Amino acid sequence: MTTQEALKIYREKIAAMKALGHAMGVLQYDGATVAPAESAEGRGKTLAYLSGRSYEIETGPELKEAAQYLKAHADDLDPQDRREIEVFLRESEFTASIPQEEYVGYVELLNRADTVWHKAKQDSDFPAFAPIVKEIFEINVRFARYYKPDQNPYDTQLSRYERGLTMEKTDAFFNTLKERIVPLLKKVMSKPQVDDSFLVGKNYPIEAQRKFSDYLMDIITIDKDRCSIGETEHPFTTNFNKKDVRITTHYHEQNPISSMYSVIHEGGHALYELHSADELEGTILSGGVSMSIHESQSRFMENLIGRSREFIELIFPKMQELFPDQLVGVTAEQMFLAVNKAQPSLIRTEADELTYALHVLVRYEIEKGLFDGSITAEELPRVWNAKYKEYLGVDVPDDRQGVLQDSHWSGGNVGYFPSYALGSAYGAQMLAKMKQTVNVEAAVRSGDLHPITDWLEAHIWKFGGLYDPMELLERAVGEPFDPRYFTDYLEKKYSAIYGL
Amino acid sequence: MTTQEALKIYREKIAAMKALGHAMGVLQYDGATVAPAESAEGRGKTLAYLSGRSYEIETGPELKEAAQYLKAHADDLDPQDRREIEVFLRESEFTASIPQEEYVGYVELLNRADTVWHKAKQDSDFPAFAPIVKEIFEINVRFARYYKPDQNPYDTQLSRYERGLTMEKTDAFFNTLKERIVPLLKKVMSKPQVDDSFLVGKNYPIEAQRKFSDYLMDIITIDKDRCSIGETEHPFTTNFNKKDVRITTHYHEQNPISSMYSVIHEGGHALYELHSADELEGTILSGGVSMSIHESQSRFMENLIGRSREFIELIFPKMQELFPDQLVGVTAEQMFLAVNKAQPSLIRTEADELTYALHVLVRYEIEKGLFDGSITAEELPRVWNAKYKEYLGVDVPDDRQGVLQDSHWSGGNVGYFPSYALGSAYGAQMLAKMKQTVNVEAAVRSGDLHPITDWLEAHIWKFGGLYDPMELLERAVGEPFDPRYFTDYLEKKYSAIYGL
Repeated sequence: MTTQEALKIYREKIAAMKALGHAMGVLQYDGATVAPAESAEGRGKTLAYLSGRSYEIETGPELKEAAQYLKAHADDLDPQDRREIEVFLRESEFTASIPQEEYVGYVELLNRADTVWHKAKQDSDFPAFAPIVKEIFEINVRFARYYKPDQNPYDTQLSRYERGLTMEKTDAFFNTLKERIVPLLKKVMSKPQVDDSFLVGKNYPIEAQRKFSDYLMDIITIDKDRCSIGETEHPFTTNFNKKDVRITTHYHEQNPISSMYSVIHEGGHALYELHSADELEGTILSGGVSMSIHESQSRFMENLIGRSREFIELIFPKMQELFPDQLVGVTAEQMFLAVNKAQPSLIRTEADELTYALHVLVRYEIEKGLFDGSITAEELPRVWNAKYKEYLGVDVPDDRQGVLQDSHWSGGNVGYFPSYALGSAYGAQMLAKMKQTVNVEAAVRSGDLHPITDWLEAHIWKFGGLYDPMELLERAVGEPFDPRYFTDYLEKKYSAIYGL
Repeated sequence: MTTQEALKIYREKIAAMKALGHAMGVLQYDGATVAPAESAEGRGKTLAYLSGRSYEIETGPELKEAAQYLKAHADDLDPQDRREIEVFLRESEFTASIPQEEYVGYVELLNRADTVWHKAKQDSDFPAFAPIVKEIFEINVRFARYYKPDQNPYDTQLSRYERGLTMEKTDAFFNTLKERIVPLLKKVMSKPQVDDSFLVGKNYPIEAQRKFSDYLMDIITIDKDRCSIGETEHPFTTNFNKKDVRITTHYHEQNPISSMYSVIHEGGHALYELHSADELEGTILSGGVSMSIHESQSRFMENLIGRSREFIELIFPKMQELFPDQLVGVTAEQMFLAVNKAQPSLIRTEADELTYALHVLVRYEIEKGLFDGSITAEELPRVWNAKYKEYLGVDVPDDRQGVLQDSHWSGGNVGYFPSYALGSAYGAQMLAKMKQTVNVEAAVRSGDLHPITDWLEAHIWKFGGLYDPMELLERAVGEPFDPRYFTDYLEKKYSAIYGL
């Protein structure tokens, strides 16, 4: 074998896996958006077939030999190919550690789980979901043990989403947040509350909200020829290549803010995928490098930009145009305050920036408990509700607004949640760095966000998976990760809003 | 090999082909409905990969040997398996006659063609579409020659859609229609025209039209848990299994009738797929047997039921509820007359029952000409417009309303069009037979269409591909196909409406 031959085999096999992944992704997206209710069984069979073929290619001798040859001849490769082979071997090692039928069975299980979760959430019926979530966690523990038999399975799981992340680091991170956020929240709550009563009790027609989504996608510079928007129970982003990205939102007739921030959040994910460098397209390095970096981009757009005073001033005329009767007599400043109201609440995706990390902490602690066996699936509602009472001081009225609210566990995204809090903190550090060279407020005020998105493209997006997440962050901000940028940002913002 | 072993191999391979077909179908459906504009290239690569794998399985030695073994041991098989093997060998012979790279290239071409056609239609720009339609017809001629080198390629093509159909038979069929329809239309046109002016110049909000679609699906007994509705430039039906069928429609704000009959027409297709017998599920015999039988079902619902006086009386209260201002002062009888107005027009899908066959005739004659070389792709607009003038007496103002109106050629459905006229005629014969035992008018009037759909299920739908189309029709109606049922139906209906 020559290096050229090995590369050819490697590229062919990766292209095959990408095609299978594309087909599976579209099947799943279709299933979540427009497929009829009874379609799940047929989709499960097809996903099982396709994932079986993908498994065979990824773990088969041809690709393995080619990749190992290339690793042994890394000096012949350019840096991008060298990096790709390194990442491939790392990832395929995980896949290969799982027996094929368990791998395929898990894909089928997740397809079923989506349907079960949807119905359970709708009916607020946790017992219907309990056996599925139990099985999903058991499988994740087992897979983590297959992959790294000598390591704590939850550490293994965390590191799969964010390379190098451990419980120890995550605990320390959350402790830093708690130390600053809990007293800050206490001070905020002692002040007169922001008035957002004008948002309550009115109908915002879905058609107008759809137009608002289109407008928001334009504002945050999304190329709609490469990214479309759908509607799902739980908003998400998925991508098949850099010319085919999908975001989704969920419209609530009484609450236009919910969908507004879903669109901006998922739009942030989409921008990351849409601006991966052309040279990476078709390789396994295209697109976002990790979930925390991904969440740093989505929450950057959602909060650091989307909840800024300048952004609300920018978009408020459009809101008035689309919802004239609903917003009569309301000012942009009132809207700015309303979307930044800090208040312990039930739903993570609609939480303010200050309390958000506490929602994530609840999930993180529960995942740890499910992994080490100190919490059972059956106990989930009780534990969930107790933690919401402890950290947020709220009573959970039903499981629909409690443990069933998120789609992550039914989607197999176990170990994902810390990414949200980490991403929020990464984003604050990026913003501080960006502000050294970009007049962020002026860009937002002008309505042309390109100075901001250009910086993100140049320092984050274009690199795809070329660097491990921590290295990418350090290259972008010029120093190690420091969560105090985030806590400083929160303190400054909420002190101003609440006059502390 | 034993029969059991051969059956096992056969079933495994068919399941793999079904999974690949399912994935390709969802990719195509997604592409036509919600995918972003620039997604075509990535989808093309994935479709090429999946179709290549499907080709390899269908023409590969394992499946071939198993199927041939089973054919040689047909006495060991039950009738359904015997039939399935016979149909599989027939169909795989066609696939195997095409070189793999041409087969895959054609799938890619059609994916590109869809995008090109959409844009060309939008811009009314035939020259942009000409090279593609030329290539598609050339490939179809070539494939027909590969398959049956000694047969006229258009005969081969017709027979692929409707086994046993030839140009001779199709010519004779259209001549029968022309003999009766042309003089009838002349008489109709000499009478005072039906007044449909109340349909013109008003806006029918898309949201209300969407609700109307849902209502119509319920009325014609579609199980919405197994069939969803999407929106496309050109309405179509696709199905992945009997629990996952999709119909699409196109909403025109000024014309609710267009979408109404698209929904009922595509709903007729969907019902056929949804009611294939359970025993056939997962075999290649599930679903509709041929395009003409399929069109007999869609046009049955659309016209024989959907344009009947009883049906309009049934649904008119709902129309008034959804479009109260637009239909103020209009009666059900006026609506019945308006949706049956006979008038030569430009758009096939919106043509009345009387002139419809003439639209199909134009396309049939053009396809013959493109196959035998007497018409070139470049000449299409000129020939199209001349034939519309000759058969329908109308001037085509632009190619968007002319040769670019249908998606069939860009979708590779070459030789399909005669199915519409044949299907209309089959349907009329089925209705005559049905009326011997079912009070069709009373069923429609009651709002419960099950006596009608039960008959269709028992005599057509449940059989899937167990019989060739002509045999299926004869078994259902108890005699050979006779197009006079259709012309008699038209004569009776239009004589009453126009007082001939």
